[in-house]
Amino acid sequence: MTSSAGPSERVVRGPVVPTAAARAVQQTLGVDDVRLSGGVLGRLQDVNRHASIPLGLEQLETAGNLDNLRLAAGSAGTDVSADTDASVTGEFRGPVFMDSDLYKQLEAVAWDVGRIPDPALAEFITASAKLLTDVQLDDGYLNSYIQTVDPRGRYENLSFTHEMYCAGHLIQAAVASARVGGDPQLLEVARRFADHLVEVFLRGEHPGIDGHPEVETALVELYRLTGERAYLDLASRFVERRGVGSIGDPPNRNRGARYLQDHLPVREADTLVGHAVRALYLEAAIVDLYLETGDESLLECSVRRWEDMVATKTYLTGGLGSRHAQEAFGDRYELPPDRAYAETCAAIASIHWSWRLLLATGEAKYADLIERTLYNAFAASTSVDGLRFFYVNPLQRRPDHYEADDPGRRREWFECACCPPNIMRLVSSLGHYVATHTSGAVYIHQFVPGTVRAPLSSGPVELTVRTDLPWSGQVTITVDQGPEGEWTLALRVPSWSTTTRARVGDEPAPVEPDEHGYLLLTRDWQRGDTVTFELDLTPRLVHPHPRIDAVRGTVALERGPLVYCFEQVDQPDGIEVADLAIAPGARLRPVEAEHGGVGRTVVIEVEATALAGDPVAGLPYRSGPRDADRPGREVVATAIPHFQWDNRDGGAMRVWMPRLPFHG
Amino acid sequence: MTSSAGPSERVVRGPVVPTAAARAVQQTLGVDDVRLSGGVLGRLQDVNRHASIPLGLEQLETAGNLDNLRLAAGSAGTDVSADTDASVTGEFRGPVFMDSDLYKQLEAVAWDVGRIPDPALAEFITASAKLLTDVQLDDGYLNSYIQTVDPRGRYENLSFTHEMYCAGHLIQAAVASARVGGDPQLLEVARRFADHLVEVFLRGEHPGIDGHPEVETALVELYRLTGERAYLDLASRFVERRGVGSIGDPPNRNRGARYLQDHLPVREADTLVGHAVRALYLEAAIVDLYLETGDESLLECSVRRWEDMVATKTYLTGGLGSRHAQEAFGDRYELPPDRAYAETCAAIASIHWSWRLLLATGEAKYADLIERTLYNAFAASTSVDGLRFFYVNPLQRRPDHYEADDPGRRREWFECACCPPNIMRLVSSLGHYVATHTSGAVYIHQFVPGTVRAPLSSGPVELTVRTDLPWSGQVTITVDQGPEGEWTLALRVPSWSTTTRARVGDEPAPVEPDEHGYLLLTRDWQRGDTVTFELDLTPRLVHPHPRIDAVRGTVALERGPLVYCFEQVDQPDGIEVADLAIAPGARLRPVEAEHGGVGRTVVIEVEATALAGDPVAGLPYRSGPRDADRPGREVVATAIPHFQWDNRDGGAMRVWMPRLPFHG
Repeated sequence: MTSSAGPSERVVRGPVVPTAAARAVQQTLGVDDVRLSGGVLGRLQDVNRHASIPLGLEQLETAGNLDNLRLAAGSAGTDVSADTDASVTGEFRGPVFMDSDLYKQLEAVAWDVGRIPDPALAEFITASAKLLTDVQLDDGYLNSYIQTVDPRGRYENLSFTHEMYCAGHLIQAAVASARVGGDPQLLEVARRFADHLVEVFLRGEHPGIDGHPEVETALVELYRLTGERAYLDLASRFVERRGVGSIGDPPNRNRGARYLQDHLPVREADTLVGHAVRALYLEAAIVDLYLETGDESLLECSVRRWEDMVATKTYLTGGLGSRHAQEAFGDRYELPPDRAYAETCAAIASIHWSWRLLLATGEAKYADLIERTLYNAFAASTSVDGLRFFYVNPLQRRPDHYEADDPGRRREWFECACCPPNIMRLVSSLGHYVATHTSGAVYIHQFVPGTVRAPLSSGPVELTVRTDLPWSGQVTITVDQGPEGEWTLALRVPSWSTTTRARVGDEPAPVEPDEHGYLLLTRDWQRGDTVTFELDLTPRLVHPHPRIDAVRGTVALERGPLVYCFEQVDQPDGIEVADLAIAPGARLRPVEAEHGGVGRTVVIEVEATALAGDPVAGLPYRSGPRDADRPGREVVATAIPHFQWDNRDGGAMRVWMPRLPFHG
Repeated sequence: MTSSAGPSERVVRGPVVPTAAARAVQQTLGVDDVRLSGGVLGRLQDVNRHASIPLGLEQLETAGNLDNLRLAAGSAGTDVSADTDASVTGEFRGPVFMDSDLYKQLEAVAWDVGRIPDPALAEFITASAKLLTDVQLDDGYLNSYIQTVDPRGRYENLSFTHEMYCAGHLIQAAVASARVGGDPQLLEVARRFADHLVEVFLRGEHPGIDGHPEVETALVELYRLTGERAYLDLASRFVERRGVGSIGDPPNRNRGARYLQDHLPVREADTLVGHAVRALYLEAAIVDLYLETGDESLLECSVRRWEDMVATKTYLTGGLGSRHAQEAFGDRYELPPDRAYAETCAAIASIHWSWRLLLATGEAKYADLIERTLYNAFAASTSVDGLRFFYVNPLQRRPDHYEADDPGRRREWFECACCPPNIMRLVSSLGHYVATHTSGAVYIHQFVPGTVRAPLSSGPVELTVRTDLPWSGQVTITVDQGPEGEWTLALRVPSWSTTTRARVGDEPAPVEPDEHGYLLLTRDWQRGDTVTFELDLTPRLVHPHPRIDAVRGTVALERGPLVYCFEQVDQPDGIEVADLAIAPGARLRPVEAEHGGVGRTVVIEVEATALAGDPVAGLPYRSGPRDADRPGREVVATAIPHFQWDNRDGGAMRVWMPRLPFHG
């Protein structure tokens, strides 16, 4: 197989790099183009590099991911890290998709090395590539589970074996490594596997698709990197095969066609159903295919589902997936805060999808959802120290919380460890999601302190962004370099900012966003010019749509991009979170704080009423409301950003608070 | 093994018959002592006999339960029904507890034959007993799964194999058959198995308990029937072994100690957790043991958990179990109406438990919960025609309802078919749960048209009860026979009846219930005397406890013992159930109706507001409430008794309705 076109000239060190021919209305930037120097997201990157990634690498040994591959290589001596003496005798360990943890980890490492070089990390990629080369079969196939446990089962049970899901993550890791100039051997392994998939599933007769979408976006990226059209065609083939009965009745009936997104052809489905992460990865692929093929019907159906998801199936935090059972989307407006699943991987997948829609349309609403998801559902998934993670991200925890599949607290690792390395690969590539460019404009989607470099057609632009968001509302952007003549600085006006002000130098600029939601500042910019953007961080109470039964009669608290919550540990002595209620006119006072265990934060002191506890006696139903006659006393309750919860004790927490006055 | 005491002299043809020495403050009656001649419960018995039981018998062939036993018997020719020629070659079919479906069916048939003799049904018991004799091993063991699939696995994996759960149902069937004078062979089989269990688990060294409680109550009943103390001791042994690590870490970690009620010793647990049916069966056994042993600590802990369950984990319908996952109880106050599991078997188990507590204490609150459960969670489980069943009993179904494990509509049968035969055995023994007696009083707990016969110490009493409950509120009780001198007629005063009137003959009697909740009418009753009891069927709006987050800001509608719901099919054209809201002062008008498909009913016409649908656009959260400014129009909505829902189409349904006024 030979490339039909060379890679694009400028190497963008980022995870999504549409070709020059693509329908993208904006172009992406690399992790070296956009550097984060602080803020909540920048801090995530530091913690990721210094705590999470080292933990992840260690877990690859502890949990057996590397041993599985060593077993498969039949090479007891193969050793990808100098200080390990793990045995490679024994049996395959963990779930069938163990290889994918390594691949996501490799991708995380690649982006992080692309951000800040590190020979030891680069060596991990090289050593892994060597190991994978040893495991890879002559025909290009590579999967430690199949090779060690079920060699005859290759492609026999695609709804569950994750063989192509793993292949997809291998390909994404290899693309990342190639884009940041890492060891070329990883890309070689990935291409051999991809070529093999092309032989079997595109040129060959195998009618299957993987039960877990993922290889589709990966193949599109591999096409983008290599110019090899067959990869794009194979991705398209896989997407078109969905919903036409490609997956037979799987062994576990609960995990049927809906679970696997094989219930309807992609152009026909109106709403996301089934396993949330699978559904969302598939959507990212659908938009990728639109971008590269120009098939408008793909964009149209995906936008339709995005609108439906946002309006009816999205938690306030951006979390997705209402049910533990099948890790699935629920019915429309089924959004229970307590039993929310809101898997961390679903938040990540949502960002992947929205990002592609942003590239395809240029509309700020996609960046709005990315911001909401990043600062809440996603940021909450990692502890302050970067060493513990949420898989499940509820919006409420009762004092007697129990879930068989979730302790309600972050954990160091998981038997199904899909989330932590997924977090790591997103965090190490966060710069990619901050800004984009067109030929004549730089778009800032997320306001993060740091620098942005973008190649406009008239020449490169360099900007410095200074901001203390999300803690205070001012953003100052300085032009460090720019081409001659006019070009545009485009700033997203966040939907949450009620009153937004802008100045260019000392000159007020009217904040009148264009039809896509961006404030366009077109000037003949000079080095040293500054733009000041004042976003409105007044705390606000938000009310849910009346069809969301599970949070009727409640309010939640937001400030800037942050959703807040009430943790038991912050409340006055003797006041249970469950007895707090808030009036719509309540005084809300932001207070800068350095909470032990939480780090820097701004808490909000809230005028609230603590209702007397209602003693347990008889059925909890009666004629006449029970609230109106309960004595209450005025207290000051304290809310902290939701992403910072569970860094102290394990008490009750809730985002949605009963709204006063009760009535009846 | 020989009996240490003979069976009690008077044979009570009922499922719970404490010994004369037991701590029961009331004595139970048989299915021939209390005959139902109509009403909702009487109608259930008719449909049960003429539709459900025949369907159940057919399913024992279709689903393979009988074939499994024939396989085990190694007797291809054995045939328990004249018109079947099912093959007995092949493999074991269905879940491991398939035998229990037959046993529950046998128990249902036994009670029904005890009610109204039928030679064909009696012959089914005889034929089954023959088959079981053929299957039973020399040492008394009997289990078609173990014998055909895993002969070496006997008692090796008790947390999942249900070997003693099945044994328990066999014993209960045999006790039922013996009490109604059925073929003695079934009791012989059951006793041989019970004696074997005594050898292994009481006299022997095996430390195990069954993962699914059930054998415990059965052993107590077998003790009651036979007087053999070892059965009682074994039941006690099993209960005492719970919560002390008797069940090791089972293969599926999600089904751990909590799921199996092995997390805490029974005297220590404060709240019901884990699999609801298992937890509830265990409680029934705990109270049975109190009754027969007098160990007050058992009654005390079980009452404590009952109070906790009623106050924090019980649905308005009496349904129990908030989670599909693990079919389990949720956290306190976690009572989502849409994702309620409320398994039919849990409603049945709740009735078993409350009934024993009623016998132990004489308190009407237990009969109150039984009534609520019978008329709502339980009655809803069967279709009007008796041919379809709910396993899961939610209080809300959205128009786009989807559950992987439940279609949201009744089904003819189930792969795990525990519920239908469980329904059948309760329905055929319903008379048992209507009335009790003491030496000098007859207690009426449920007001059902029919006759009651009770042996007071001074002589037998016979009563006729005439009532059209739950459709109208009058109950007339006539004394058909009674002994000389004073005796007491005790009538439960239902907690839902706000204004209750009583007359003896034409004489008003003050309705002043005693401390247990019963109106005691002590007279020298004469044949033909009548008591008239006027219960209050004014429809009422009920409000949930403010800690039940899932139904905050809603009201539900009740009338008498019935919970109502709003089905889409009954609403005015163009009005979606999801847009209806009700003010606390709304006019509620009961209307007698004969709804096609539902049968006789009283619907309630409700003054309601239909809010304009809120179009899908953007996130369903915003600053400022969305309800206050939605235009609404006055409509008349229609509610039907919840137990009658889903007898027409499959549209939306809800019990809890948004409460007006919205505010903010």
